[in-house]
Amino acid sequence: MTNPRQPHQPRQLSLNAFLHDTGHHEASWRHPESSAERAHDIEFYVEQAQKAEAAKLDGVFFADIPGLWAATPYRPTAHLEPITRLSAMAARTEKIGLIATASTTFHEPYNLARLFSSLDIISGGRAGWNIVTTQSEAVARNFSLATMPDPAERYARAQEFIDVVTKLWDSWEDDAVLADRDSGRYFDPDKVHAINHVGRFFQVEGALAAPRSPQGRPVYVQAGSSNEGRAFAARNAEAIFTAHQTLGDAQAFYDDIKSRAARFGRDPGHVKILPGISPFLGDTEQEAKELQQYFNELTVPAYGIGQLESLAGISLGHLELDERVPVELFAGSGDVLDNNRSRLQVVANIVERDRPTLRQLLHRLAGGRGHNVVAGTPLQVADIITEWFENGAADGFNVMPPLYPQLLDAFTAGVVPILQERGLFRTEYAGSTLRDHYGLPRPDSLYAATAAATTA
Amino acid sequence: MTNPRQPHQPRQLSLNAFLHDTGHHEASWRHPESSAERAHDIEFYVEQAQKAEAAKLDGVFFADIPGLWAATPYRPTAHLEPITRLSAMAARTEKIGLIATASTTFHEPYNLARLFSSLDIISGGRAGWNIVTTQSEAVARNFSLATMPDPAERYARAQEFIDVVTKLWDSWEDDAVLADRDSGRYFDPDKVHAINHVGRFFQVEGALAAPRSPQGRPVYVQAGSSNEGRAFAARNAEAIFTAHQTLGDAQAFYDDIKSRAARFGRDPGHVKILPGISPFLGDTEQEAKELQQYFNELTVPAYGIGQLESLAGISLGHLELDERVPVELFAGSGDVLDNNRSRLQVVANIVERDRPTLRQLLHRLAGGRGHNVVAGTPLQVADIITEWFENGAADGFNVMPPLYPQLLDAFTAGVVPILQERGLFRTEYAGSTLRDHYGLPRPDSLYAATAAATTA
Repeated sequence: MTNPRQPHQPRQLSLNAFLHDTGHHEASWRHPESSAERAHDIEFYVEQAQKAEAAKLDGVFFADIPGLWAATPYRPTAHLEPITRLSAMAARTEKIGLIATASTTFHEPYNLARLFSSLDIISGGRAGWNIVTTQSEAVARNFSLATMPDPAERYARAQEFIDVVTKLWDSWEDDAVLADRDSGRYFDPDKVHAINHVGRFFQVEGALAAPRSPQGRPVYVQAGSSNEGRAFAARNAEAIFTAHQTLGDAQAFYDDIKSRAARFGRDPGHVKILPGISPFLGDTEQEAKELQQYFNELTVPAYGIGQLESLAGISLGHLELDERVPVELFAGSGDVLDNNRSRLQVVANIVERDRPTLRQLLHRLAGGRGHNVVAGTPLQVADIITEWFENGAADGFNVMPPLYPQLLDAFTAGVVPILQERGLFRTEYAGSTLRDHYGLPRPDSLYAATAAATTA
Repeated sequence: MTNPRQPHQPRQLSLNAFLHDTGHHEASWRHPESSAERAHDIEFYVEQAQKAEAAKLDGVFFADIPGLWAATPYRPTAHLEPITRLSAMAARTEKIGLIATASTTFHEPYNLARLFSSLDIISGGRAGWNIVTTQSEAVARNFSLATMPDPAERYARAQEFIDVVTKLWDSWEDDAVLADRDSGRYFDPDKVHAINHVGRFFQVEGALAAPRSPQGRPVYVQAGSSNEGRAFAARNAEAIFTAHQTLGDAQAFYDDIKSRAARFGRDPGHVKILPGISPFLGDTEQEAKELQQYFNELTVPAYGIGQLESLAGISLGHLELDERVPVELFAGSGDVLDNNRSRLQVVANIVERDRPTLRQLLHRLAGGRGHNVVAGTPLQVADIITEWFENGAADGFNVMPPLYPQLLDAFTAGVVPILQERGLFRTEYAGSTLRDHYGLPRPDSLYAATAAATTA
């Protein structure tokens, strides 16, 4: 369970496949060759995970909210629960990491600790938890809450939630199970610990209802980039999914997180920063750009307008599609949900820099919801990845194919081999856990050193 | 999705395999050939499900509490979360039903509705939910509760919980997904319904974050036999797991539940009553009884005494193992947890009828925790099953092998063929869902008939 990478091996990229229905482009499902009829078919996701594993990617990842993605009929808006999906996918794969999003606002820590512990055990140590606090009034109304707690309150709960989950994951020491037929002792009661957590949000006795999982703790992932989100990530996260359109923005974020992590006394090398990248690939740049344009023309403008209005809290009803978007429309937007602030900043930057028409802006956002959408040859995309990786902007990428499986296939067949030739990406898995793939240490149990112990 | 059984086909048995670590006998893990080292290995459970499927059983079943089974080192007490386990097992099986226990006291209905909907979709319609209210002070302390709600309160919450979950499962009508590339409409907003539930315990807007699952609703299972439990089961359950030691007790329970169900206006044929049976099998009766005795001698008396003390709320410290248990010890026990009352009655009946020593009583209980433990040839066990099935005591059985896989193998190889020869059990699956196997109808969505509809 030690880091399988040798000290003198060059620094290695991490690459996840971010799975998302038929693909990340909002109109992907309308493509004539899309898998629109398979968006809820587990075999479709098993296939993508097997493809990602064949290409030696680090992991697959599902976003999630406990509600509909959006109140719109214009794209797949319903989605299966990710931990159950990944449990099924674990049974049909061997090496690929399995990362599920789950909210600290809408779960009990004991239940969620169990679900991830179980996924880690089922998969032989491949689980990751993308920790979110879920900013959505609509979701709050699915959980008997009249309104969402404010960000400070959500993050306070999230921090205590993680502390409880960590203690539960550690509550069975690694060698607690004896299975000693002769003595009749199945486990050693001195190595199974009540956690006796008493906090502001939770009182949890423990121990967890399962032995310690192969990774000790599933990998802590985080994706928020608000100010609260960054502080939380720097303190807790081992991998951070983020959205940037330019090298400069990504470098600034990278620097900020790494120095914050160091200020928490953490090794910045154990905080992997993985921006999203959504690649349209073609044999020529022209072909790739035409492919992107083809997808953009499949969009339903009413969908993009609705998303933008909801993001910015404004109305766009007065704008024609081919009218230039006024710069002041997104500058200094007032009453914006905190989680949307960084994404809205991306929109404001595009409007200010490029002065697009409304149609052009909708097309810019159709591909990756603020993530970096690129169109080019495999070499061009490999060059972008290499540039960001070698210039302090990324430790790897969350790859967001516009259309599954076709543009995942194009990425693994075209881009991955170039990165491998450059010595930046593995050609074989060196280990078998997600921590192994990311080069993260396996944490000891908090209780391993304690002398006295109580059985739960 | 209609009932695949023809009207004139003889009534058919249902048989589940109740999976439980290394087996249902408390000392099974100490058997030299037990799978004690594999109690948390998902492959072990996949293998049992594949065996059960090869024998054409209706389903596999996991009990659960969100905590340790017991504060004892003397047997496997930790267990993986069942919905994740069954999701993994779904990916490696095709027909067998997958039934998980989950508590209405310690979940949010939106989360649990999603987990079971997802399991039903992943498995192609094989999910069942064993609905429990979890009577355990130790578990309450894992969920920030100082004490358990009383039974009436727990069942009131459970009833509202089921109502919410049912509405969520129905919130997407069966034909809501259009995937219509031409119009750009992925779903029909008139067929996706906010449930707008406002109740005493929950306020839930909906809709669910997933389309309607193959069974419409996973099968509702229930296992409590307190007075509250029976009323709840008769109103809600489609399959009831129960524990009886004698034909007479089972008949009385069967009659009671079927008439209660009729009083709720339900078809009693759609309430399957499935007592537990834990069979020790041998080529001769003598061999089977010796096998049972061998298991009983593997028990750790301190474990059984602890379980019995905790069940009855008394101390047994003054009794010698070979001393006869005084009848008055369990007669009219006072301060007993409601959920334990029916199990304690089983103990009291054994003590009064058979006047066992403490050691003999512990052995009687070691096999099935109050369930019916039998020892005999395959023909003798098939005769018991047939007798109960044909005399108004059971619609089938929850089979509890004392040792997995060996005594499941002995059951499927020895007992099942006799039941098949008698025309009481299928030789091939007629359908592909758990509802098909149990002969239960697929319910229409509550919202299918409504004219007006709102999008969530």
